Amino acid sequence: MTSDPAQRGEFDLIAKLFAPLTGGDDRALGLLDDAAVIPQKAGIDTVVSTDTLVAGVHFLMIESADVIARRLLRVNLSDIAAMGATPSAYFLNLSLPSDIGNDWLVKFASGLAADQQKFSLNLLGGDTTRTPGPLALSVTIFGEAPAGHAVRRSTAQVGDRIFVSGTIGDAGLGLARLQDGAGDADHLVQRYQLPDPRVSLGSALRGTATAMADVSDGLLADLGHICEASSLGAIVEASAVPVSDAARLAIGPEDTDVLGLLTSGDDYELVFTVPPGRIDHVHKASVQAGTPVTEIGRMEGVPGEVTVKGSDGGDITPEKTGYRHF
Amino acid sequence: MTSDPAQRGEFDLIAKLFAPLTGGDDRALGLLDDAAVIPQKAGIDTVVSTDTLVAGVHFLMIESADVIARRLLRVNLSDIAAMGATPSAYFLNLSLPSDIGNDWLVKFASGLAADQQKFSLNLLGGDTTRTPGPLALSVTIFGEAPAGHAVRRSTAQVGDRIFVSGTIGDAGLGLARLQDGAGDADHLVQRYQLPDPRVSLGSALRGTATAMADVSDGLLADLGHICEASSLGAIVEASAVPVSDAARLAIGPEDTDVLGLLTSGDDYELVFTVPPGRIDHVHKASVQAGTPVTEIGRMEGVPGEVTVKGSDGGDITPEKTGYRHF
Repeated sequence: MTSDPAQRGEFDLIAKLFAPLTGGDDRALGLLDDAAVIPQKAGIDTVVSTDTLVAGVHFLMIESADVIARRLLRVNLSDIAAMGATPSAYFLNLSLPSDIGNDWLVKFASGLAADQQKFSLNLLGGDTTRTPGPLALSVTIFGEAPAGHAVRRSTAQVGDRIFVSGTIGDAGLGLARLQDGAGDADHLVQRYQLPDPRVSLGSALRGTATAMADVSDGLLADLGHICEASSLGAIVEASAVPVSDAARLAIGPEDTDVLGLLTSGDDYELVFTVPPGRIDHVHKASVQAGTPVTEIGRMEGVPGEVTVKGSDGGDITPEKTGYRHF
Repeated sequence: MTSDPAQRGEFDLIAKLFAPLTGGDDRALGLLDDAAVIPQKAGIDTVVSTDTLVAGVHFLMIESADVIARRLLRVNLSDIAAMGATPSAYFLNLSLPSDIGNDWLVKFASGLAADQQKFSLNLLGGDTTRTPGPLALSVTIFGEAPAGHAVRRSTAQVGDRIFVSGTIGDAGLGLARLQDGAGDADHLVQRYQLPDPRVSLGSALRGTATAMADVSDGLLADLGHICEASSLGAIVEASAVPVSDAARLAIGPEDTDVLGLLTSGDDYELVFTVPPGRIDHVHKASVQAGTPVTEIGRMEGVPGEVTVKGSDGGDITPEKTGYRHF
């Protein structure tokens, strides 16, 4: 049980290793208390999201511990970005199998430290436990937005234009390459291992985007979430979807070749909807954040459904668009 | 990967099962978004804690799913109680092995529903994933306290009296009985399976207790945390520690027989320190909360150390007081 003194002693050492990640933040109470204490401010909303990554399911143990740590933070940061919020803090739950040693933990903590600095957030608390199963990592992340201004999925409007950030489908190709033994130097592998959560773009789009989601399940699936939550349809032009040079080399030249990219996950780009009258604001936000954006379609058609059109205007919607709610 | 459509479909069903646990709370956004949105209020602090329970480590799969759910919430509620805060919401991360079926999940959700109502809090979000390992459950819980008034561990004062709520050592004996095959009807097993987080007492002690912790690692260990955080010593009178009739029957009559109870965990009672001049407030809080409290010692002696004294005044401190920070 957790009251086993030997195990507690070991976990004290882990707490010592992670205490510097609080950055001396008063809210963490030095990780010495039963909880963190976070002062509230009038006029601000707290935005909270949580994600669990399990070894063998969401990452491979052949990956470097610092890369795993950074991806863990980044997939959570992407949820905050998708709400148009600014990240502020996180909590970490570690379930450790007995073969995870001190060296691994030191490297893991160094990855967290690097991305905490990059994205300006501190560790405020967590829990460490032993597991007979695979390594499991949960982050619960906090962000902030002006009251009532977090960007939701349910508020897209008919006729809105649909945009995505960056390029689509790289991560899915990267994961396949990683599983085939490709190394860290491969651009697509890098896109899978270290997604770039679009935090600056997300907050710059507050007040401009009517609805937003991050691309974690696949572009069509996540756009589908917006369609269902907003009770609207979406039409995507396959030829408009931004594809990286590396991904283009890996697929064929036809419209239909791009469909695999639209249904693969883990890109952590943003997909968002914008009224035609605000498109100039999107381009300003893109420049401000240093993140390219591309218009790929518009909100219209059968409510709850995403339709993909080829260059000839024909419907090339794949059977599996990722998934649909029931 | 999580983008597998079949798996996502299954998890959608789980989301449907858990959506009622939001109680229609606006902050949950219907579990349809990338995050929950929680309005902040001036003059209030958010208190946040998180705990992971793993099958075979923190609970046994022979236990009923609703009991596991309720203990999961209660161990987290106990952390909020120990801060003198009022619980307000929680997030749930589920890592599910393939042998957890719909019946188990329905029963698990019913346990959450029962204790949510009892303790007045709603589910605001979470994450569901597959694991090849054992079932793992993480809760991140939120509470609230007036700004600056959460009760910490580091603020005990020399000469303070030490109190505990309820009775000590029941849960450790109950776990041993459960492992030996005893059933749910056993009082000690019940004390292990369904601890009673002292939420009402905790908040009633705000402004009265100078320092507080919950008894999760064992009374001496958790009082030791207060000693270390406050840089003070503690002296506990073994004969003063409240022991239930059931526990008394299970141990011997000597002072030293009680030592095992002081180092066993999982009681989820509160241990707290009070200046002598405020002791009448403690008894008022006890009556108000309907939770018995007992004075067991005072804050004095070697900083960072807990000393246990027998009826003859001799030092009977066990070698293992639970654990000490380094």
